[in-house]
Amino acid sequence: MPYSNTGHEVLIVVFQVRHFSDTSNTPRDAPELGVLLWQRALDPQAGTWSLPGGRLRDDEDLTSSARRQLAEKVDVREVAHLEQLSVFSAPDRVPGARTIASTYLGLVPITSDPQLPDDTTWHPVADLPEMSFDHRIMVANAHARLAAKLSYTNIAYALTPSEFSMSTLREIYCAALGYQVDATNLQRVLARREVLTRTGTTAPSGKSGGRPPALYRFTDSRLRVTDEFAALRPPG
Amino acid sequence: MPYSNTGHEVLIVVFQVRHFSDTSNTPRDAPELGVLLWQRALDPQAGTWSLPGGRLRDDEDLTSSARRQLAEKVDVREVAHLEQLSVFSAPDRVPGARTIASTYLGLVPITSDPQLPDDTTWHPVADLPEMSFDHRIMVANAHARLAAKLSYTNIAYALTPSEFSMSTLREIYCAALGYQVDATNLQRVLARREVLTRTGTTAPSGKSGGRPPALYRFTDSRLRVTDEFAALRPPG
Repeated sequence: MPYSNTGHEVLIVVFQVRHFSDTSNTPRDAPELGVLLWQRALDPQAGTWSLPGGRLRDDEDLTSSARRQLAEKVDVREVAHLEQLSVFSAPDRVPGARTIASTYLGLVPITSDPQLPDDTTWHPVADLPEMSFDHRIMVANAHARLAAKLSYTNIAYALTPSEFSMSTLREIYCAALGYQVDATNLQRVLARREVLTRTGTTAPSGKSGGRPPALYRFTDSRLRVTDEFAALRPPG
Repeated sequence: MPYSNTGHEVLIVVFQVRHFSDTSNTPRDAPELGVLLWQRALDPQAGTWSLPGGRLRDDEDLTSSARRQLAEKVDVREVAHLEQLSVFSAPDRVPGARTIASTYLGLVPITSDPQLPDDTTWHPVADLPEMSFDHRIMVANAHARLAAKLSYTNIAYALTPSEFSMSTLREIYCAALGYQVDATNLQRVLARREVLTRTGTTAPSGKSGGRPPALYRFTDSRLRVTDEFAALRPPG
């Protein structure tokens, strides 16, 4: 029969820019982009690492399910942004009965340090362990979405502290993108688009004892497209 | 049992900017954004209008299913852009067994005039007929995505002729967005972002007999983000 019923699961790619003390693929003390994974104790694929999530229940929609399942791994109050990503629907993506997966992107600010269950930990996105099923491509897909949105929205607000110096912001952008960006250019483009607001205060002096850096915050703490064509804005 | 199996359907929101001779909510001859709908002959909700699509088969993924089901309504070679949109998963969104819907956005160039089955026709998005189930909100969701992408990508290439004057391009943007945009601003911003290329030729003179307008084409005919932060481009 070509139209069997299928199962539906929700999987959440939770990213946080954080310090990994035990990795060495970035300069000492530089933060990296991490993803939240749990290790499967049972087959199929016991020992591999999976995204948090699970089956959709009869009485919930996908977003309710994502929040419920995330809550089993991490305090969801720590998640500053949650959005639907993609659907993974290859007929043979998991063994056994067909299961379609909807993925979500979740972002946790660098200042959060959520309690985690014993089977769950953060892994650097640049150095993933052996992943379950198609979960590695889901992480890559989510990372591509995050990188794209960093370039045309204010989504970085969900990764940063509430107030930050430009050098901290630059570190977070570099970690989230996976390559170096120039702090002067970053500040100029974000200022021109009115994405950042100066708080009027300064941070304690840096390690080098120089002039105390100015602090900034994101003007909005809701997602918006920051660089829409001005010519295309709706009237009024 | 809280985890029953569910059905999964794919629904495609196909937009075309086109001339509707029998509507009068825009100036005479101005094109409008249309959406492809078919009228249900049978219950549930006989007589209401639905998006093209249907159930996911066991042997196909969502994108294959979208192309297959679209082919039943319209020659898919006429669809210049197809992308996954959202998942509609409210437990009671349709009567009977639970069915989750994945929606796609499809775009047809203004120059296409595809053959349609008898039950299928284009409707102005601004004047929809009585819609089935949650299909009206799916159209609104797709329209919002199209409007957003018009403002930060080159997606309009999938709505235009291969070559066009600025006044034709402006008409298409106005129709797709649902409000007026200024041709001079539009040309300036698209030129600065290198979205448009002059063909070096001109159109036949306009009705008013003035200077023949220059013709343009989209530089790329694949979707790209046109206004990413220059500061955030990957190296190399």
